[in-house]
Amino acid sequence: MADWQVVAGGITAPRGYQAAGIAAGLKPSGSKDLALIVSDVEAIAAGVFTISQVRAACVDYCRQRLQAKNSARAILCNAGQANAATGEQGMRDALKSAELLAKELNIPAESILLASTGVIGQRIKMDAMSNGIPKLVAALSQNGSDEAAGAIITTDLVKKSIALETTFGDRPVRIGGIGKGSGMIHPNMATMLAFVTCDAAVSPSLWQQMLSRAGDRSFNSITVDGDTSTNDSLIALANGQSRTPAITESGYEADKLEAMLTEVCQHLAKAIARDGEGATCLIEVQVTGAANEQGARQIAKTIAGSSLVKSAIFGRDPNWGRIAAAAGRAGVHFEQENLRIQLGDFLLMENGQPQVFDRAAASTYLKNIAQGSSLPTNAVATNMSNDLSIDRNTTMTQRVDNPLIIAVNIGNGHASGKAWGCDLSYDYVKINAEYTT
Amino acid sequence: MADWQVVAGGITAPRGYQAAGIAAGLKPSGSKDLALIVSDVEAIAAGVFTISQVRAACVDYCRQRLQAKNSARAILCNAGQANAATGEQGMRDALKSAELLAKELNIPAESILLASTGVIGQRIKMDAMSNGIPKLVAALSQNGSDEAAGAIITTDLVKKSIALETTFGDRPVRIGGIGKGSGMIHPNMATMLAFVTCDAAVSPSLWQQMLSRAGDRSFNSITVDGDTSTNDSLIALANGQSRTPAITESGYEADKLEAMLTEVCQHLAKAIARDGEGATCLIEVQVTGAANEQGARQIAKTIAGSSLVKSAIFGRDPNWGRIAAAAGRAGVHFEQENLRIQLGDFLLMENGQPQVFDRAAASTYLKNIAQGSSLPTNAVATNMSNDLSIDRNTTMTQRVDNPLIIAVNIGNGHASGKAWGCDLSYDYVKINAEYTT
Repeated sequence: MADWQVVAGGITAPRGYQAAGIAAGLKPSGSKDLALIVSDVEAIAAGVFTISQVRAACVDYCRQRLQAKNSARAILCNAGQANAATGEQGMRDALKSAELLAKELNIPAESILLASTGVIGQRIKMDAMSNGIPKLVAALSQNGSDEAAGAIITTDLVKKSIALETTFGDRPVRIGGIGKGSGMIHPNMATMLAFVTCDAAVSPSLWQQMLSRAGDRSFNSITVDGDTSTNDSLIALANGQSRTPAITESGYEADKLEAMLTEVCQHLAKAIARDGEGATCLIEVQVTGAANEQGARQIAKTIAGSSLVKSAIFGRDPNWGRIAAAAGRAGVHFEQENLRIQLGDFLLMENGQPQVFDRAAASTYLKNIAQGSSLPTNAVATNMSNDLSIDRNTTMTQRVDNPLIIAVNIGNGHASGKAWGCDLSYDYVKINAEYTT
Repeated sequence: MADWQVVAGGITAPRGYQAAGIAAGLKPSGSKDLALIVSDVEAIAAGVFTISQVRAACVDYCRQRLQAKNSARAILCNAGQANAATGEQGMRDALKSAELLAKELNIPAESILLASTGVIGQRIKMDAMSNGIPKLVAALSQNGSDEAAGAIITTDLVKKSIALETTFGDRPVRIGGIGKGSGMIHPNMATMLAFVTCDAAVSPSLWQQMLSRAGDRSFNSITVDGDTSTNDSLIALANGQSRTPAITESGYEADKLEAMLTEVCQHLAKAIARDGEGATCLIEVQVTGAANEQGARQIAKTIAGSSLVKSAIFGRDPNWGRIAAAAGRAGVHFEQENLRIQLGDFLLMENGQPQVFDRAAASTYLKNIAQGSSLPTNAVATNMSNDLSIDRNTTMTQRVDNPLIIAVNIGNGHASGKAWGCDLSYDYVKINAEYTT
C-alpha cells in the first residue's frame, strides 16, 4: 500500500494550489501571522473540529459552511488572537474576514473556510486583518507553502510540513499538509491546526469519511498534556487537478488515497507530539491483541498520556509497572494474565508477570533514542515569544522517524492501534508555570 | 445535617475496635509496615476497589470474600510489596496470610480482609509476614489507630486520620478512618488505601450503597496525576457496638450516617490530594448548574486534573482560559454562553466572556492560599525513602481546611459536584523522573 514517496512543496505540492504567509501585525512580535491557501478551482472540502463545548467562532463558522456546502476555494488562518470566548462579536469578525477575502479573491464568501490560533478571549485585530488581506492575496504563490506554514505557528519550535506523491494509473497524485501545535507554552494558546491539500478527484462523502478516520488515527491519537483546545481544526481540500478518475466508492484507489492521507496526518501529528513543550523525545505506543481498533487506541493513548510513564521516560527508566498500570486503567477489558509489554527490543512483561531483562541496556536504549532525536532543548525555555521563524524541517523529520517504541499486547483479539506522545520534563512545568499573563 | 464533631482516636474511636501497627521487616527501611484492624464482633463490611484490569491479589481476594459474605472481623494490611502482577503465587500468598492471622486471632479466615501497598511485581515477604503476625496481634490496642495509620503509609509525607461523633437519640455514634496515598513518588507505589470503622448498626446493602456513593464523592473525585493504582481499596466496617437501633432503610438516620461517612471519606481524600507529590496547595473545584451530579463531578475532575490548570496554579496565575478550556473538553454538554468562572472571590468569566478583574489581587489570593497551607516542601525531595514516621496530623488538617476554590457554573441545571486536586510543581517531575529503579 505504501508505494508513495516524499516530495518537496508541502501544501503547494499538489496541482492547482497556491499559498501565502505574511506578517499582518496580528502578533505583537511582528512575525508572520496570516496564512492563505487557495485552490484554483472549487475543491471538495472536509473538516474535523474540536468537540469542546467552549469553541472559537471560526470552528462554528466552518461547521456551518461545510454543512451547507461540501466544497471550498480558500482557507484563511490568522495567528495571534484565537477569537474564542468572544461572543457574537467574534462571529461577526469571522464573517467580516471572510467577506473581505472573498472580495479580494473575487469568489463567494461561502467558499472560504477560516481558522484562528492565539490568545483565548481576544478578538481578531480587524484593522490589521483588513489591511493584510490584499497583501496576502498579492503574495499567493505556487511555492508559498513554507510561508503559510510559518504564519500559522505560535509557540512551535519548528514548522511542520510534508508532501507525498503516488501514481494512479500513470498520473501523479499528491497530498500535502502543514500543521501547528506544541502543547501550550503560552496560556490559552493550545490550538492544533492542520491543513491538507490533495489533487485527486474524490466524492465529498468519501473524502469526509477518509479524513475522519485519518484524524482518529493521527491527531486524535496524540497527547501532549491531555488538554484540548477551543480552536482545534483539521481541514482537507481535494480539487481533482491531478486529472485522475474520480474516486466515488471504496476499493483499491480509495484505500490507497486514504492510506496516503493517513500518512500525511500521522506525520504532522507526530511532529506536533515531538514538539511538545519541554519534550526530549517522541514516544510511539503500539497496542495489539485488542478486540477492536478503538480499544487498542484507547489503551495506547492512556499509556502515552500517563504523567508517570512520561516522567519515567524522561528519567530513562524502563518502568514496566507504570506502563501496566496505565494499560489497566484505560477502561478497556483484558485479562492481566495475558499482558505483554515490550520497550524497544526489551521484553519487560509476559503473561502478566515481570520478566528478567538487562536493565542497564534498556536504560541505554532510552538514552540513545533521546540523543538520536535530540534538539536544541534550550530553545524551549528561551523561545517564549511568538517569534519563531527558524526552519528545522529536516531535523524534525529525523526526530519523528526515530520514536521510542512501547509495544503492548493484551491478548484479547486481533485489532491494533497506535498513539504518540512525548516525555514530561522539568521544562514543561517551568514553561507553563512561569509564564504569567 | 452536619451536627457532628471531630473527636480523637481515628479508627479506634468507634466502640468495639482495636488496631495495631508494627515493623515486621517488610519494608527495607525497617519502619512500620504491617497494620491490623479488628472488630470485637463480626461487622458489616463494604468495599470499593480499583477498576483497573491490572489488579493486586488482595483486591481479587476481597472481592471474592465480600461476594460470599458481607461481614468481617479484621483487616490486615502490609506495606512494602504490592503483591500485584504476581500471578497465582500472589493469590496463594494472600490466602496464606489470611490463614496465619485467622489462626492467631482464632477466627475463620473468611472473616479477614486484606490490603497491600508497595512495589508492583513483588511478592509479600512471607517469612516476615509469618513472624510478624503474632507480634501484630499482641500489639492490638483500643488506642492503636495511630500505629496502624503509620504502618500503611509508604511515600506519604503525613499520616491521614479522622474521627467524627454524632448522636442517634442520646447515644453516641462514631465513624473513624485512616488513609494513605500521595501520588507516586516511588515507581509502582501508587496505592490509595482507606479503612473506615463505624459502630452504628446498619444493614449490609445500605452500608454498601452508602460507601459506594461516599467513595464517588471523595476518593473518586480526587486526582493527583490521573493515574490509578492496581491496589486501590476502600473498606468500611460497621459493627453495631454503639447499641443504636439498626438502620435498615433510607430516612433521617440513614441520611445522617451517610453524610458523616461521606465527610470522613472526603477528609481522607482531600488529605491525599493535598499530599500530592511536590504539591504546594489543595485545589477544590466546585461545579454548579449541571443537569446531574455525575456531569458536575466530571467537569470538576477534568479541571482539577488539567496539567495546564495545575501548572497555572503553581505559577499563581489566575488563568481563566485554561479553566474554561478544561471545562469544555470534559465531555459534558453545556452552552459556552452560560459559562461562569470564579477563582476565590474573583469573577473571571461570565456569560462565556472574560471579565475585567484585579489580576494582581487575584494573584495575591493564590499566593496567600499557598502560604496559608504551606508545608515543608523540601521534605518532598528528601523523603524518598519509605521511612516516614513523622506525624503532622494537625498541620494536615489546617492545610485541608483552606483549599484554593475554583467555582464554575455551566447554567444547565441544578445539580452540583466537587473534585479536589493539587498544583503541578517542578518537584513532581523531579520526583518521578529522578527515581530510577
